[in-house]
Amino acid sequence: MEERKLREECGVFAITTDPSESYHAASETYTALFALQHRGQETCGIAVNDRGVITVKKGVGLVNEVFDIESLNALEGQAAIGHVRYSTAGSNDWLNAQPTVVRHQKGNLAVALNGQITNAYSLRSELERKGCIFQTDSASELAAYLIVRARMNVGTIQEALCVAAKQLKGAFSIVVMSPRKVMAVRDGYGFRPLCIGRLGKGYVISSESCAIESVGGRLERDVAPGELIVIEDGKLSSMDTGLREKKTALCCFEYVYFARPDSVIDGLSVDRARRLMGAHLARLHPVEADIVIGVPDSGLSAAMGYAEESGIPYGVGLIKNRYIGRTFIQPTQVERERAVKIKLNAMAENIRGKRVVMIDDSIVRGTTGDRIVNILRDAGATEVHMRVASPPFTDPCYYGTDVPDRSMLIAPNHSVEEIAKKFGVDSLGYLTEEALADVAKECDLEFCTSCFNGRYPVEREMESSIYERRIGE
Amino acid sequence: MEERKLREECGVFAITTDPSESYHAASETYTALFALQHRGQETCGIAVNDRGVITVKKGVGLVNEVFDIESLNALEGQAAIGHVRYSTAGSNDWLNAQPTVVRHQKGNLAVALNGQITNAYSLRSELERKGCIFQTDSASELAAYLIVRARMNVGTIQEALCVAAKQLKGAFSIVVMSPRKVMAVRDGYGFRPLCIGRLGKGYVISSESCAIESVGGRLERDVAPGELIVIEDGKLSSMDTGLREKKTALCCFEYVYFARPDSVIDGLSVDRARRLMGAHLARLHPVEADIVIGVPDSGLSAAMGYAEESGIPYGVGLIKNRYIGRTFIQPTQVERERAVKIKLNAMAENIRGKRVVMIDDSIVRGTTGDRIVNILRDAGATEVHMRVASPPFTDPCYYGTDVPDRSMLIAPNHSVEEIAKKFGVDSLGYLTEEALADVAKECDLEFCTSCFNGRYPVEREMESSIYERRIGE
Amino acid sequence: MEERKLREECGVFAITTDPSESYHAASETYTALFALQHRGQETCGIAVNDRGVITVKKGVGLVNEVFDIESLNALEGQAAIGHVRYSTAGSNDWLNAQPTVVRHQKGNLAVALNGQITNAYSLRSELERKGCIFQTDSASELAAYLIVRARMNVGTIQEALCVAAKQLKGAFSIVVMSPRKVMAVRDGYGFRPLCIGRLGKGYVISSESCAIESVGGRLERDVAPGELIVIEDGKLSSMDTGLREKKTALCCFEYVYFARPDSVIDGLSVDRARRLMGAHLARLHPVEADIVIGVPDSGLSAAMGYAEESGIPYGVGLIKNRYIGRTFIQPTQVERERAVKIKLNAMAENIRGKRVVMIDDSIVRGTTGDRIVNILRDAGATEVHMRVASPPFTDPCYYGTDVPDRSMLIAPNHSVEEIAKKFGVDSLGYLTEEALADVAKECDLEFCTSCFNGRYPVEREMESSIYERRIGE
Amino acid sequence: MEERKLREECGVFAITTDPSESYHAASETYTALFALQHRGQETCGIAVNDRGVITVKKGVGLVNEVFDIESLNALEGQAAIGHVRYSTAGSNDWLNAQPTVVRHQKGNLAVALNGQITNAYSLRSELERKGCIFQTDSASELAAYLIVRARMNVGTIQEALCVAAKQLKGAFSIVVMSPRKVMAVRDGYGFRPLCIGRLGKGYVISSESCAIESVGGRLERDVAPGELIVIEDGKLSSMDTGLREKKTALCCFEYVYFARPDSVIDGLSVDRARRLMGAHLARLHPVEADIVIGVPDSGLSAAMGYAEESGIPYGVGLIKNRYIGRTFIQPTQVERERAVKIKLNAMAENIRGKRVVMIDDSIVRGTTGDRIVNILRDAGATEVHMRVASPPFTDPCYYGTDVPDRSMLIAPNHSVEEIAKKFGVDSLGYLTEEALADVAKECDLEFCTSCFNGRYPVEREMESSIYERRIGE
Repeated sequence: MEERKLREECGVFAITTDPSESYHAASETYTALFALQHRGQETCGIAVNDRGVITVKKGVGLVNEVFDIESLNALEGQAAIGHVRYSTAGSNDWLNAQPTVVRHQKGNLAVALNGQITNAYSLRSELERKGCIFQTDSASELAAYLIVRARMNVGTIQEALCVAAKQLKGAFSIVVMSPRKVMAVRDGYGFRPLCIGRLGKGYVISSESCAIESVGGRLERDVAPGELIVIEDGKLSSMDTGLREKKTALCCFEYVYFARPDSVIDGLSVDRARRLMGAHLARLHPVEADIVIGVPDSGLSAAMGYAEESGIPYGVGLIKNRYIGRTFIQPTQVERERAVKIKLNAMAENIRGKRVVMIDDSIVRGTTGDRIVNILRDAGATEVHMRVASPPFTDPCYYGTDVPDRSMLIAPNHSVEEIAKKFGVDSLGYLTEEALADVAKECDLEFCTSCFNGRYPVEREMESSIYERRIGE
Repeated sequence: MEERKLREECGVFAITTDPSESYHAASETYTALFALQHRGQETCGIAVNDRGVITVKKGVGLVNEVFDIESLNALEGQAAIGHVRYSTAGSNDWLNAQPTVVRHQKGNLAVALNGQITNAYSLRSELERKGCIFQTDSASELAAYLIVRARMNVGTIQEALCVAAKQLKGAFSIVVMSPRKVMAVRDGYGFRPLCIGRLGKGYVISSESCAIESVGGRLERDVAPGELIVIEDGKLSSMDTGLREKKTALCCFEYVYFARPDSVIDGLSVDRARRLMGAHLARLHPVEADIVIGVPDSGLSAAMGYAEESGIPYGVGLIKNRYIGRTFIQPTQVERERAVKIKLNAMAENIRGKRVVMIDDSIVRGTTGDRIVNILRDAGATEVHMRVASPPFTDPCYYGTDVPDRSMLIAPNHSVEEIAKKFGVDSLGYLTEEALADVAKECDLEFCTSCFNGRYPVEREMESSIYERRIGE
Repeated sequence: MEERKLREECGVFAITTDPSESYHAASETYTALFALQHRGQETCGIAVNDRGVITVKKGVGLVNEVFDIESLNALEGQAAIGHVRYSTAGSNDWLNAQPTVVRHQKGNLAVALNGQITNAYSLRSELERKGCIFQTDSASELAAYLIVRARMNVGTIQEALCVAAKQLKGAFSIVVMSPRKVMAVRDGYGFRPLCIGRLGKGYVISSESCAIESVGGRLERDVAPGELIVIEDGKLSSMDTGLREKKTALCCFEYVYFARPDSVIDGLSVDRARRLMGAHLARLHPVEADIVIGVPDSGLSAAMGYAEESGIPYGVGLIKNRYIGRTFIQPTQVERERAVKIKLNAMAENIRGKRVVMIDDSIVRGTTGDRIVNILRDAGATEVHMRVASPPFTDPCYYGTDVPDRSMLIAPNHSVEEIAKKFGVDSLGYLTEEALADVAKECDLEFCTSCFNGRYPVEREMESSIYERRIGE
Repeated sequence: MEERKLREECGVFAITTDPSESYHAASETYTALFALQHRGQETCGIAVNDRGVITVKKGVGLVNEVFDIESLNALEGQAAIGHVRYSTAGSNDWLNAQPTVVRHQKGNLAVALNGQITNAYSLRSELERKGCIFQTDSASELAAYLIVRARMNVGTIQEALCVAAKQLKGAFSIVVMSPRKVMAVRDGYGFRPLCIGRLGKGYVISSESCAIESVGGRLERDVAPGELIVIEDGKLSSMDTGLREKKTALCCFEYVYFARPDSVIDGLSVDRARRLMGAHLARLHPVEADIVIGVPDSGLSAAMGYAEESGIPYGVGLIKNRYIGRTFIQPTQVERERAVKIKLNAMAENIRGKRVVMIDDSIVRGTTGDRIVNILRDAGATEVHMRVASPPFTDPCYYGTDVPDRSMLIAPNHSVEEIAKKFGVDSLGYLTEEALADVAKECDLEFCTSCFNGRYPVEREMESSIYERRIGE
């Protein structure tokens, strides 16, 4: 059923509360996970720290399925970390739910991670050679091991986290909770977002700022690439891991597709980034038309940007059914076109007899484009001009995005003209990498654009890991 | 948790399939109920007719909670009717789920109803005096009784439905399924919408056209006030009940709030109606501002209308969390303001430093307005001008809307200035009844506006019925 | 999965509490339904009367599946009636859950029934001809109609119940609750058990005395055939319906198989009846053997009776798995023999090298006998002599027992020798009707033995009704 | 609700199948866990090995709650191990469900354990000092670590298991599954049972023989104390760990209470052991009486033994409700006596006017004895003579039984006379240790009787471990 083009791997959240205030760490985290739910809908979990004792509740399902009032109330604690996650199907999914909570020589530890460790296989192998055992496939278990083992040689848990962060390659935004501290670290490229906010006298750390605001907090700043944050006794301090790369590489798909439009990531509003992309599209691929519409939800902001720049009126052309969820049962004999129609319906009133510019955020597999175009044609659109708010998607991602096999991608194997013809559009225009670079100028970090050009910031060792996953479990 | 301003009572759907085609009546109805889910989220049900044998599956919950693949597959049939419903809390809710399926002397009958019968109490009393028993509070059980008893004196089930329709007062859009026919009837005022579409060689009848389109069907026309539709042997015929009133009274809140924007009701697109309301607001209450935003979801179209008319740019100012549902657990000590923040977040990027025109569809109780305004102020809005796309809501509704007690309404007891002050807005402007009448010109029917002026098309006997409900059960 | 030989249709319970005591009518009924659960495991329900307002909670499943603490607490009330039921499979099962609660001209009414109405079809037809509608297949809905309509012509609800009881043919033990009274009536033959107990200053009425004892009450006496009981204002009064037949006909299978051994029915302990049957078997079919065992659970008491009478030691030969329930998933390729083994295991210690007398309560289809014998042989039994604590089962039942089609019965089509051979036993002996009559001497009522001899106390109209059930719904 | 006197910690099961036969490893294990369910009702799990890939499904609840047809079918595999478990309450319970499945340098490993490791704390501490992390409190995780680390220094997984077994102190019956082997090991005292059977050409290993029989298998023999079993390529081989103690110590409560009567443990049938205990009681504490009854279920066999030896007739005096389960909701204001009555009801017929000998398996806390006696008195017993089929329970257990704190035990603090008075019995007699030793003569192993005399076979380090559990998590 799920037809999301790409899957973000995770969202993380952490909170410390001040005893003089009435915040309930687990409930705030619960609320925040609702605001991060778009980043991961398969498992979720909350770990709380109650005077040094860390407990966790996690499971398979949406936040509202895993938690009920009883389980939330049972999660007493002054600090908490939370996690939402996508994962591949299989009966073991629940084992991979995060946060991972472990006991080690020095106490308890809870770890939650957003990203993808590209050297996970070799790190695990090395640990296994030393007699370590792994009960899950999750990167957070690996991170926990590295932290715990580093802790044996350094004096503090934050130093141990620093040592561990240096061993990890790839993309990671990690939150860690020990009996007395909440910590966070972001990889040296800044692949995945991570930001800091205040809630009363306490602190919150989140993948996206919208979650900070959902609990009534206020965004303070982003965690910098290579920065390590420690919150202890109500005070936040920063530590430089020395990992920051000269050329940072924030995943541009956070702006294109993943993040909520009301989030601000590394200084750039997601909505604004999308509007800029739309404006660029208007300049790159102008067309005479009567209305600009977006494919909901991620195409809407770009559509507004296109409209503003082009002067063509913006309008609502497609309505998305909000109740279709993971459990929708597809009627068995339904044709492919109807499968889309169940989720998207044309606003015929706005489309009929018009030349339509339709903005979508990206084209990955190219399996639904023709059906959406058909919906517009059926609703009376006389012309459909498709504009895509990202460059052609040509290469797999190794940094936390669940991208289909390269053979499943449409861009590497088809010209723009071929795709336009397949989709049945009157014209098709993609964003350029140059335009994307221009958008990036407003961001504190540079963009990772490897999915558009195959230039990977970090060497990849993923294939072997994937291979191992098959035979190993 | 649920803070919907008003509750529509129901949505209905009916379908007949042609044996030469591969439609599955229950699955199509299931899909259609997803498209009608916004009209009722507490119970739902589907009745199917398999070669004359009618069975029903219904329950408490959303469509995706009540039906699973097993129950859907078990609902074999060539025709079906479906229903979604709001209902008041209580352990008996499931008894009131529709469709109601009964057996009577001439066979089976399934009935589903959207609306409110104002003379239900006297009709029930009369039936009870004749020895009838009632197992539920639902109007569909009452309707079933009237149809069955009428059938004893007339030759066909459609004539019986016609007789029953004449006995019912108030608002009703009813779908009925007998072993050989699917029927529908709409009250003489046309309070609640009802439309006809085609799906292949079969027919579909629905509260809203968006459900017809969700199954791949095509809207044909509306059922006229007082019209009775019979579909038999694949043929649709129309019958005049003689009930049509000179002055029709379609509920204007269908346009203001209830219906999906992509639905077309009695010839007028819901989105267009909202845009017109917005444009009227721009003319009635102009203001100098930098951006026009809508309160999602029902305020968005009106906001676009206001923007177009005023020339002030439209923008997204508030983002709604799509995952907060019926089961969200409110953190216990959360202040009132945060309760709104969990659901709505400001798009600070678009608001900061700006004079904002905020369009909401209506003000009913006036309990959340101040908090939404606060969210905008916190996000940096320098001015907030609220515009309401409907007139002041002053009177209860007796035609299928669950309106709070008059004492709970804010408009009858406060001046516009008082409300503006309470909300903390720089200005507040309502739509006028005249403007609404102007919008109604594009609709095939006149509007019922009794909630704005207390002029009820049908005399009401509801109080006694409500009273009886208390002591009787 | 379910391999019960026969299915009792139902169990009923009713309670009135005294305000000076702290009994909670719904919780007591809940406890009592656990004690009656063996009489019906597919649906259950409780209706409570809270100062004249009757509400009901019912559903598909065992008592512990349908009720949770929340739903029990919501059932506030001073009186209650409850019901457990078997029913045939189908998606409409929940509609047939009892008690049936209706509203009529004079108020509310809750009805629960154990038994089978043989003239249900003609009564329903007659009511339908008068314009009545039926929403379920349950006899309690029919009874409710009859009571309500009778109530229009008589002065009290108990008189109405009396009129209704006179219209019903077949087997019925009914409990009824009105806003001010709890009533009960038993058919004139006394087919199904019904007894009265005291709990504090209040009364309880139950299908079996074990349920009275489970709530801490004390069995007072049985409701006599044709007796109508009224409890009002804490006082119990009795009324003679005039229905009592000269020759009563209590279902002997209540003793053979249905009832719990600790229940006392019409003056005869179920355990004692079974022991007497066992003793008769010992006299009728003596054999040289080393141990007497029973097939659990219903064969155990008879086995003790056989042992006592014969002097052969009683022992435990078969252990039943207590955790195998309705949801056990049969391994797909399991042979028939293992299907029994999962539920029954031999106590090899007691069997090995022994000549075994194995007592079963009855043989209905004869499909599992051979497998049980095999289990004993595998455990080392040198001889197996089967004794059956009831006569050959030759005829269907029309009074509340779900008996397989006559063609499915083994006794009418096979001689005792054939069955013995099929089962692989060294000898096989049935109880005789004479012996059963001898047991009946200790009971206040005569036995219905129509399933052994086809002599039905009440003429049957069931076939047409069953037929109608097929086409009608 | 649960009032079990003692809680066994676990039951284990393992199976290998032959490819030429049609056994389904997971389904057989599922069936077997039903037969072991009495040993653990809080969590359960099954791990399967499908051509070297080990996957696991486990969860909180009874076997029929954790597994459905979908999850069972998904567990494809040629070998499997399973586990049922009691555990202490808490939100982390599911983390402690077994089998534990880990990945290590040499592949996968699944481990399930019944018992209690008395040096768990020091072993864990030592591992933690080496950088190991623990995600659960379960002994199987600890065992997995020891095996994996041992494997680094020895050539085979069975040798590694042998090394690990030597490190573990306390009681343990462990089953282990690697990609190519199924193994089992039993501690040197033989505290917990473990036996081997055949199923077709494959092998089964089980805590109790009843589970072997439930899948149609045949008990071959017991695993000897200190024996290690390896099944590879369809062949079983045995290995001596050298751990066997001179004086073995099988938990005598397996016979008294835990095991199913149809199981045979170390050569002694549980039912026979109980009968012998009953016979000893008859000799030790004779009394003039009319009937001997047992408290179901574990007192029944001993009651029969007492009856045989004494010549007093055996009878059924108490009936246990089979539907009362973990989810039974206790009526709030129910008195203590009724709490027992809900579960146990007297068979008054057999009790009235009689002098009753009532056999219970043991007295631990002594909280329900008086109520059971009251039930018998209410049913008309003229005298109640209680006989207890085990010696006075005076000391805590450290080998896998969840025994209440010593202060909660009744025997250390009260004389037999005091207890008799408290219970209201006419006489009270316990089994003696000498009699128990006499029973043990029929067993292949000696009995651990530390709970009766405080003489512990293995020194205990449990307190610190328990302490650590509190602060550590």
